[in-house]
Amino acid sequence: VATLAERGEQWVIAEARRRAGPPLGAIAVGIGDDAAVLVPPPGERILVTQDMLVEGVHFRTDWLPPEVIGRRAAAVNASDIAAMGGTPIAFVAALALPGSLEAPWVERFLDGLCAEMLTAGAPLAGGDTVASPAGITVDITVIGAAADPVLRRGAEPGDLLVLTGTLGGSAAGLALLADGVRWPGRTPAERAAMARHALPTPRIGPGRVLACGAHALTDVSDAFATEVAAITTAYGLGAVVDEGRLPILPEARALSRERGDGVEGARRWALGGGEDYELLAAVPESRLDTVLSRIRATGVALSVVGRVVARPGLWMVRADDGKEVPLDRSLIGEPFEHFGPGRGTP
Amino acid sequence: VATLAERGEQWVIAEARRRAGPPLGAIAVGIGDDAAVLVPPPGERILVTQDMLVEGVHFRTDWLPPEVIGRRAAAVNASDIAAMGGTPIAFVAALALPGSLEAPWVERFLDGLCAEMLTAGAPLAGGDTVASPAGITVDITVIGAAADPVLRRGAEPGDLLVLTGTLGGSAAGLALLADGVRWPGRTPAERAAMARHALPTPRIGPGRVLACGAHALTDVSDAFATEVAAITTAYGLGAVVDEGRLPILPEARALSRERGDGVEGARRWALGGGEDYELLAAVPESRLDTVLSRIRATGVALSVVGRVVARPGLWMVRADDGKEVPLDRSLIGEPFEHFGPGRGTP
Repeated sequence: VATLAERGEQWVIAEARRRAGPPLGAIAVGIGDDAAVLVPPPGERILVTQDMLVEGVHFRTDWLPPEVIGRRAAAVNASDIAAMGGTPIAFVAALALPGSLEAPWVERFLDGLCAEMLTAGAPLAGGDTVASPAGITVDITVIGAAADPVLRRGAEPGDLLVLTGTLGGSAAGLALLADGVRWPGRTPAERAAMARHALPTPRIGPGRVLACGAHALTDVSDAFATEVAAITTAYGLGAVVDEGRLPILPEARALSRERGDGVEGARRWALGGGEDYELLAAVPESRLDTVLSRIRATGVALSVVGRVVARPGLWMVRADDGKEVPLDRSLIGEPFEHFGPGRGTP
Repeated sequence: VATLAERGEQWVIAEARRRAGPPLGAIAVGIGDDAAVLVPPPGERILVTQDMLVEGVHFRTDWLPPEVIGRRAAAVNASDIAAMGGTPIAFVAALALPGSLEAPWVERFLDGLCAEMLTAGAPLAGGDTVASPAGITVDITVIGAAADPVLRRGAEPGDLLVLTGTLGGSAAGLALLADGVRWPGRTPAERAAMARHALPTPRIGPGRVLACGAHALTDVSDAFATEVAAITTAYGLGAVVDEGRLPILPEARALSRERGDGVEGARRWALGGGEDYELLAAVPESRLDTVLSRIRATGVALSVVGRVVARPGLWMVRADDGKEVPLDRSLIGEPFEHFGPGRGTP
């Protein structure tokens, strides 16, 4: 099998270019010049976000096939544009690749990467390809557009906290991979959870709907509890989360029971696991019905999971006894610290 | 001395945020949300370019101090916006950093990075900070704007090839570093060449001027001969370069003589070294006077170094005998291949 060193840099660029196809949408000039040229939608704001994925830290080539790693890299980036209520208009990707990498791995990775970008509505428009002395690094920048971007700041006491889709599936899928279960899983429950981890869906349509009603918006890339804090306590507010209304993925509940971790294990995955890439918004009660009906029309569930309150702090109303308890580390496990000792794929 | 693992990820983000300062120019929302929000200049095109620098491949921490590595990373990225005739409006930067890195290194790196971004006219507006299992990777995306971007495509037979500044200095500086000369060099000539390598100036002002006259435009990031080909032979045209008019940095000539490589060594640095980050344009003769006077007003030299011709291929008129010879590998040395065996900082 040919390696990247044998094929050369120009081969990678040509393969990426072929999969990206000719410029489309807002892209006037794509791969091949000093910079890509975009024609922004008139009157709209431009959004920029960047996410770097490092082999051994964010992904492992022995856990997921290359096309899945590629799809996931594009999806998690697009999610940040959805989290502003925007639409992706162009992607650029920098790849640091070891020369020893086999050419088919690169082809399959680019298959997934470019397919997911087009799924999110915008092709690859440029980037960089460099040699890596050790390991693969993928760094993607997404350019998006939004008439009226929704920030993390802006929630008001009394707003309802709403969440698209489900929680806990990604953490359950990651736990399976860490336990040595091979992709794509052996049972329907395993496959559901692993797919939630490996192939998240950026909520672009629902994000556009939320942009017309939400006071504050973000995506659940870090732990759910951390993201609730990011739109409430970060601005001197608080939140009360209703445990009984958390949309925990049923398969995550089942897998937690199988592992003997019961309800508590599933709750930890849901509150502390992160990487579900759902949207979390603070919506005024007066706009809830409109938002609910329009998002459900996109085929995505929307749950009311709590409420913004004026007193700073996070609380949870327990499902079993209705008691309000602090939503703290004891309920959600340890937070992610990138530079901590012994870090690696969790 | 504290390490990054002790200080943590939030410390890096806070340090970057402090140096970036509050949003300015086209930036409405900077570091801290799911994406940066930009208000593009009305009617202008948006430019996007990304450049990844890997420790051991593109830079070495034992060759240059951290603030210089930071400045250079921002400058080489901004040069790609200048190469479209545009102005940077926002930078985002992803940093993969080992937890063992010392905090003062990160502080000095961010000093240089953020200072150079502001020098180029736009602050850091976002990015990502992740753990690296081995080595530092810096990936920067620049967003620019231009009313009328100038592409690599567009040169016409008869156009003059013009070049800002000088050639060969960067390659001379890199040769000194590879020989073990310590930054910033021992003699005025060494310091001049090493500064050309380590602290290139993105030609943003001259690029704006060239955008009002040039048919085609690029920057000299790869070898000069490669860049001439990128705006001529890539589109079925040719070029004749006038050796006697190549603006080789005088200090590079002197250093080549000192090394016993004479005129030929300096010519190889100038034609094959690359990384001078000057602008190369194809300008119709009728517009030359206007372009010349306006660029010289910016304090940057502009040289007419050759002419675009209809027959495909690259030639050089030799300075010593006026003879036209093919501009081939024998004159410029080996091209850079990222994934080749034994790659590393050249």
